Amino acid sequence: MASRRLLLLSNSTNYGAGFLEHARITIRSFLGTNVREVLFVPFAAVRFSYDDFTAKVRDRFAESGYAVRGIHDTADPVKAVGNAEAIAVGGGNTFHLLKRLYDTGLLEPLRERALHGAPYIGWSAGSNIASPTIRTTNDMPIVEPPDFTALGLVPFQINPHYTDAVLPSHGGETRADRLLEFVEVNSNMPVIALREGSILRVEGNEVTLLGERPARIFVNGLEPYEVDPEVSLQFLMG
Amino acid sequence: MASRRLLLLSNSTNYGAGFLEHARITIRSFLGTNVREVLFVPFAAVRFSYDDFTAKVRDRFAESGYAVRGIHDTADPVKAVGNAEAIAVGGGNTFHLLKRLYDTGLLEPLRERALHGAPYIGWSAGSNIASPTIRTTNDMPIVEPPDFTALGLVPFQINPHYTDAVLPSHGGETRADRLLEFVEVNSNMPVIALREGSILRVEGNEVTLLGERPARIFVNGLEPYEVDPEVSLQFLMG
Repeated sequence: MASRRLLLLSNSTNYGAGFLEHARITIRSFLGTNVREVLFVPFAAVRFSYDDFTAKVRDRFAESGYAVRGIHDTADPVKAVGNAEAIAVGGGNTFHLLKRLYDTGLLEPLRERALHGAPYIGWSAGSNIASPTIRTTNDMPIVEPPDFTALGLVPFQINPHYTDAVLPSHGGETRADRLLEFVEVNSNMPVIALREGSILRVEGNEVTLLGERPARIFVNGLEPYEVDPEVSLQFLMG
Repeated sequence: MASRRLLLLSNSTNYGAGFLEHARITIRSFLGTNVREVLFVPFAAVRFSYDDFTAKVRDRFAESGYAVRGIHDTADPVKAVGNAEAIAVGGGNTFHLLKRLYDTGLLEPLRERALHGAPYIGWSAGSNIASPTIRTTNDMPIVEPPDFTALGLVPFQINPHYTDAVLPSHGGETRADRLLEFVEVNSNMPVIALREGSILRVEGNEVTLLGERPARIFVNGLEPYEVDPEVSLQFLMG
């Protein structure tokens, strides 16, 4: 796994900013100057087309000089993954994304490629599926994937879009309640909860939090605690 | 299916009120005076024990003169379901609840009993599983049931704890976004979204919304719309 390079964004769009705008410089520095084309996986899209999603990503990446190709638009998607210089997986519905990866037989090829050679960029659902399973997604299970097992590019769970908000006059669980339930029944699996704007960069076994805000760590048997950007998160690698 | 009698609550606890307090009179009128004991299913509990959950429900039902027995506390749970005078299924995590019903082989017996004779009361996760599937749950998929298929006591989906809230400075989907995604990919399945405090009463093929607030209907191809309490919702029965 030593060659994995991952950039895992909590969200695509900061409040009041443009699509992927908060991550533009980070993405450019992560992909560098050798990558020319990024293979994009738009399968999390539900209420807009894969073409539209890909066009939106293409426009943004073009500003940094990268071409973007939609995986749905390749003659042989498995081969396209095998040859990808870099991979990007967009947000939307995590169940929809994972089901489509199973249906197309692309889960294993993507895992192989991301663990051995191709830099991987994900946001929201695309970050979620870098975890061992999708058990920490915030999304509604609108479709049923054959299994919750995901890419497992890291040995811990990510919760994107983490929020401390408590809805007024509402009896539903807070996000922290949900993640405490997760670690209660998944006692060996830590979770890093990424607030809006946060990014996790993984290079081999090094994990670094980027952005302005702390992330929250949930581990069975411990009170949840905060970690600051730029400090070592090596302990998450187990 | 003509003999089904269901009372499906959005939530157990209104803001500022006690546990099941807002539903006390409705529950009493629903169960009537012939029911003496309610069989309670506490399997949605994750961070508290089935015993504690059952004790809490027992205290509340005792005020109206009903005894409560926890299904985890019976020698033969399948037989207990078959003999139940009434069934109550509590809230918590919907995935946890459904997985436990599969693991214990109780899903089918519960469905049979609720469709043919025993009044069924559910709240939150307990209302969600009265739907054909759990695809409209708000909960985190912390465990993996073998299937999303649920009790199917009604031919439509329920979304409990419905909220119109939009989190400030947050890029996550609103509840309406999520349900619009659901009907996009489940085009023949309507959803009734129940706000806090709302209750759905089903008697045979009659469906009535109880409470102070309108519910929201999501149907593929239509703008979401509101329905008021006490008007006929027969169209949901298909």
